[in-house]
Amino acid sequence: MYSFKNDYSEGAHPKILNTLLQSNMTQEEGYGYDTHTQNAICKIKNLIGNQNIDIHLISGGTQTNLVAIGAFLRPYEACICVHTGHIAVHETGAIEYTGHKVITVDSNDGKINAKKIQEVLDHHIDEHAVKPKLVYISNPTELGTIYTKEELKNLSEFCNSNNLILYADGARLGSAICVKEANLTLSDMCKFTDAFFIGGTKNGALLGEALIIKNENLKEDFRYHIKQKGALLAKGRLLGIQFEELFRDNLYFELANHANEMANILTKGLKEANCKFLINSPTNQIFPILNNKIIKKLQEKFSFYIWEKVDDKNSAVRLVTSWSTPKEVVLEFINEFKKI
Amino acid sequence: MYSFKNDYSEGAHPKILNTLLQSNMTQEEGYGYDTHTQNAICKIKNLIGNQNIDIHLISGGTQTNLVAIGAFLRPYEACICVHTGHIAVHETGAIEYTGHKVITVDSNDGKINAKKIQEVLDHHIDEHAVKPKLVYISNPTELGTIYTKEELKNLSEFCNSNNLILYADGARLGSAICVKEANLTLSDMCKFTDAFFIGGTKNGALLGEALIIKNENLKEDFRYHIKQKGALLAKGRLLGIQFEELFRDNLYFELANHANEMANILTKGLKEANCKFLINSPTNQIFPILNNKIIKKLQEKFSFYIWEKVDDKNSAVRLVTSWSTPKEVVLEFINEFKKI
Amino acid sequence: MYSFKNDYSEGAHPKILNTLLQSNMTQEEGYGYDTHTQNAICKIKNLIGNQNIDIHLISGGTQTNLVAIGAFLRPYEACICVHTGHIAVHETGAIEYTGHKVITVDSNDGKINAKKIQEVLDHHIDEHAVKPKLVYISNPTELGTIYTKEELKNLSEFCNSNNLILYADGARLGSAICVKEANLTLSDMCKFTDAFFIGGTKNGALLGEALIIKNENLKEDFRYHIKQKGALLAKGRLLGIQFEELFRDNLYFELANHANEMANILTKGLKEANCKFLINSPTNQIFPILNNKIIKKLQEKFSFYIWEKVDDKNSAVRLVTSWSTPKEVVLEFINEFKKI
Amino acid sequence: MYSFKNDYSEGAHPKILNTLLQSNMTQEEGYGYDTHTQNAICKIKNLIGNQNIDIHLISGGTQTNLVAIGAFLRPYEACICVHTGHIAVHETGAIEYTGHKVITVDSNDGKINAKKIQEVLDHHIDEHAVKPKLVYISNPTELGTIYTKEELKNLSEFCNSNNLILYADGARLGSAICVKEANLTLSDMCKFTDAFFIGGTKNGALLGEALIIKNENLKEDFRYHIKQKGALLAKGRLLGIQFEELFRDNLYFELANHANEMANILTKGLKEANCKFLINSPTNQIFPILNNKIIKKLQEKFSFYIWEKVDDKNSAVRLVTSWSTPKEVVLEFINEFKKI
Repeated sequence: MYSFKNDYSEGAHPKILNTLLQSNMTQEEGYGYDTHTQNAICKIKNLIGNQNIDIHLISGGTQTNLVAIGAFLRPYEACICVHTGHIAVHETGAIEYTGHKVITVDSNDGKINAKKIQEVLDHHIDEHAVKPKLVYISNPTELGTIYTKEELKNLSEFCNSNNLILYADGARLGSAICVKEANLTLSDMCKFTDAFFIGGTKNGALLGEALIIKNENLKEDFRYHIKQKGALLAKGRLLGIQFEELFRDNLYFELANHANEMANILTKGLKEANCKFLINSPTNQIFPILNNKIIKKLQEKFSFYIWEKVDDKNSAVRLVTSWSTPKEVVLEFINEFKKI
Repeated sequence: MYSFKNDYSEGAHPKILNTLLQSNMTQEEGYGYDTHTQNAICKIKNLIGNQNIDIHLISGGTQTNLVAIGAFLRPYEACICVHTGHIAVHETGAIEYTGHKVITVDSNDGKINAKKIQEVLDHHIDEHAVKPKLVYISNPTELGTIYTKEELKNLSEFCNSNNLILYADGARLGSAICVKEANLTLSDMCKFTDAFFIGGTKNGALLGEALIIKNENLKEDFRYHIKQKGALLAKGRLLGIQFEELFRDNLYFELANHANEMANILTKGLKEANCKFLINSPTNQIFPILNNKIIKKLQEKFSFYIWEKVDDKNSAVRLVTSWSTPKEVVLEFINEFKKI
Repeated sequence: MYSFKNDYSEGAHPKILNTLLQSNMTQEEGYGYDTHTQNAICKIKNLIGNQNIDIHLISGGTQTNLVAIGAFLRPYEACICVHTGHIAVHETGAIEYTGHKVITVDSNDGKINAKKIQEVLDHHIDEHAVKPKLVYISNPTELGTIYTKEELKNLSEFCNSNNLILYADGARLGSAICVKEANLTLSDMCKFTDAFFIGGTKNGALLGEALIIKNENLKEDFRYHIKQKGALLAKGRLLGIQFEELFRDNLYFELANHANEMANILTKGLKEANCKFLINSPTNQIFPILNNKIIKKLQEKFSFYIWEKVDDKNSAVRLVTSWSTPKEVVLEFINEFKKI
Repeated sequence: MYSFKNDYSEGAHPKILNTLLQSNMTQEEGYGYDTHTQNAICKIKNLIGNQNIDIHLISGGTQTNLVAIGAFLRPYEACICVHTGHIAVHETGAIEYTGHKVITVDSNDGKINAKKIQEVLDHHIDEHAVKPKLVYISNPTELGTIYTKEELKNLSEFCNSNNLILYADGARLGSAICVKEANLTLSDMCKFTDAFFIGGTKNGALLGEALIIKNENLKEDFRYHIKQKGALLAKGRLLGIQFEELFRDNLYFELANHANEMANILTKGLKEANCKFLINSPTNQIFPILNNKIIKKLQEKFSFYIWEKVDDKNSAVRLVTSWSTPKEVVLEFINEFKKI
């Protein structure tokens, strides 16, 4: 039974495993001072076109979020994000554990904008409430939607003029950047945020996210924060190799592009069969609305999560494609759907 | 200019000051082991009719909330409260600073109920989200509304059957209990909650809240929590004297009753003059909706806060009466309003 | 039975109670914006001779320490203090609860110096250990000893040149300043530290410590920290009145001076009777070494704490005098000792 | 140049890499519900001979320590460990960041015993100090020394009778167990502690420590703690595979045994050449005392850390062998030393 439950069901892209093997017995420095990590950082800096950024490789998304946000904020400062934001609902209060409130604003499409942020600022005006200081976005969002270059630019300008840190969770960033309509590059991500991370775990790595810090004020002593939260791997080479390979020869975007294509084929195929969607997602997570009986039938051959009940007879499901999803399986799913 | 801004503008009831004076040069044990604190605890236990409760006197409301909630929850457990809850908006993230998420549910009247809580439980089902464990209510609420005995009983049963702690912020508890329609006593508060506090600061004390812990599981080593959060006063006698006097001869309820009466007279007077209200409040905070020009005029003679904009021409204001509000001033306010 | 257990067994100096009474029914702003607090701040600034400092009134010593240190440090930064430091042993891990390590160095006399600090710095050199950032001293120390002006100046210079914050706990500061040999003024305390507090609780106030922040970098948004830790009293007037009176007409130093004098008389009287001391203390805490049988005898008429066992037959005890200790009682203690 | 700096300079044992490759494209459940993790847990339970334990796989040692200790303690409870303990000096205050004090006791050999613990208990008796609750040991210690079965049994009995949790950091546990004189098995470790971890990172894995929780009271909701601290890897298979292989066919102990043997050869060789040692270590970290000139000479061919200055002419160095240290290199080092 093939799983569309997530994009981390397989191991890693073979090129990564191959480098693991090739380099295995070479002695390297620990804690991120190995040659692979240094190579990876160098490659990413070049790709972004900015040598004046700090890059840290960290195991996973929740860990990166809590280390970064915990480091960026003073104790009474708070984050703002949409009510579906990953830090708001799926990280077991990791941000609150670092002492910071997560203020949520309602959103239909998983995205935030200047108006919603302004409303929060208007309600937090003195020391009896927290001080909103950091805007958290994810790109793509939890609903598969994306920020275009123009939208990011606007957010960035609003944050700058309101002395807010703009931080982007890029657990699936490759997928967002590979959507042509977004007109967005890694350089743009860097230009328009104070810090963001490039997700490896969900795009072909065994583990690892690359955190980019551009804002000078946020850089100081960052490795202390990583170590204190238990996030400094002794064998940093393991993280280094992931990103060294992902950013050699454009592999990162090839993999993300494949995931998007598979999702697009699915979307197109289901739409042709008159399937409705909860939301339009151009990335590798899609949310078709299916009759509950059809869902049961499909689940005999494929595994996937039910996202939410739509009405008594229908539910939205979440289908996630990945760097490793075979095209045949996608077509099989469509056929199966059409058959039913 | 008389202030209706809050119920803590004056000092303390003269009886409290008198006892401060009388007892001043007597040596007492520190840290709450003085005779006044022991007396106060004894009086409150008798009034509640339960000798098997723990009582701790703490300086203020935010401090009591953070010490109690921080003590009651394990690191990954969270509170549930209405979106206007004091811990959610007016405590500068004090609860989050102790590491715990505050999950909010929408509410028109400042009150929570089983249905709203159930929805939260339904969305927090595994270790990827926090575990909702404590229901925070305030009685009266931030909007001056109250829980009746019946409502509290229902909440209590729901919490019990869902293994949730029910905790009540009673910063203005006297005012809630003095509303006859509530049909509620201190004993009921104790019966239907796991822990709650009786507010002194807003009902005639210089400072002080009396935290009652009934649930056996929540009692252990509680003084360690108080000390660790800096809330254990060396001269605990100061807190002891406040509650010793408030609970000698029924003073606490006399004061709360006076505050309610003054608010009721205001409400009645304004209603007679066709004033609308944002919400029906039987306690000492009321929220009349006034024309902005009238507000300006009234503010020449009285100070009070504008609560929220209602439309382009009108705003709701908050008028707070207290144990010390003179009846003449209340009548003067009504007259002034009628004149305008 | 008279208690020499501590300096907070009585209420407050009568002048403070008198002002409480006189001002009781005047309406005041809440949260430290009352006229008394503003007056107190003004008086202290004038006395120190520096208008460019921030002053915050906070209930107690542990609370002041945790709010201040929690505010001053970034998450991975640590305090250094002697192993007998109040934050190290008598605050229930309050500093650690704010997330910061307290590094201790051994000390015989309760005092720290540059050499001891340098050793700590030498062992904390990279991100695998915390970053020592704040030096905590108390003046007088837990052993009643004091820092002279010269010693403080040296510490200050060392801290400045090593980018360390120097913070002084002044729970009994009056007592230290009233020792003539110290040659130290409030202005010096301000000059040589980044922040310090002037203790009220142990020198005639009902409660309250006045935190002085001189270092510009430590001032920002400080009221947010106070509120978040539950330390912002609604009736700030209560704190304001304490310090308004203590710093009107030199009362603060008169009281501290009295406490010192009473301790000096005790010391002199006991020494005349050949009593040895654990340490030489010129302030209001003294540590005579007494035969255990004599201790038992004395405890029939006076209460005091046994500090530590010296040998099988003798123990050091702690005798604390205060602003309110009567001279007759002191003489009585000496006589009793001589008699035995 | 060969490095004796640590035991994590190479990648992983080839068998682990091989399984990574073989299983790479098989879809697995995320977050530790994969078949490899389940296999690994099963193997470890069988080896320990206790099915009633909980096992969690976590990336690294600091992370395991902070998740475990943060989960096991209530806010005011503290750890006790020796002054050289890893959590006390080399984890950047990670434990304090979770809010808990680390109380240290002096020790010459890196080991703690009942007497030292009792002294701490004697000084922590009420709510003005933290409550010591957890004894942290590491086996082997930071100085390479080990606890024998008898010593562990005694510690265990003392902790049990004093209601203390005994927790063992086993970052190099294999090395301790492979010392025959210790007479210690994994089953003993489980029998005599409440919780401990089996280190993978320093014994042939890419990353990963296996935390064993035996004490029922410490098990509840543990995955919430892991997730909240960002330690729940999406591709848990990566951790699963490490321990599946290490505990298939006794590999874990073979590797540890090799590391010990290499260290023993080094020790023997150096002693034959009249080298003194800082401490007797039977495990894979040894601490010879060398003349500073000899150190410089040796560092031309081998890299290793200087541990501490012994006198003006000599220093103790740390040599660490590992699962992958070639015997030839060890012999070469001895020869080089003898030559010089």
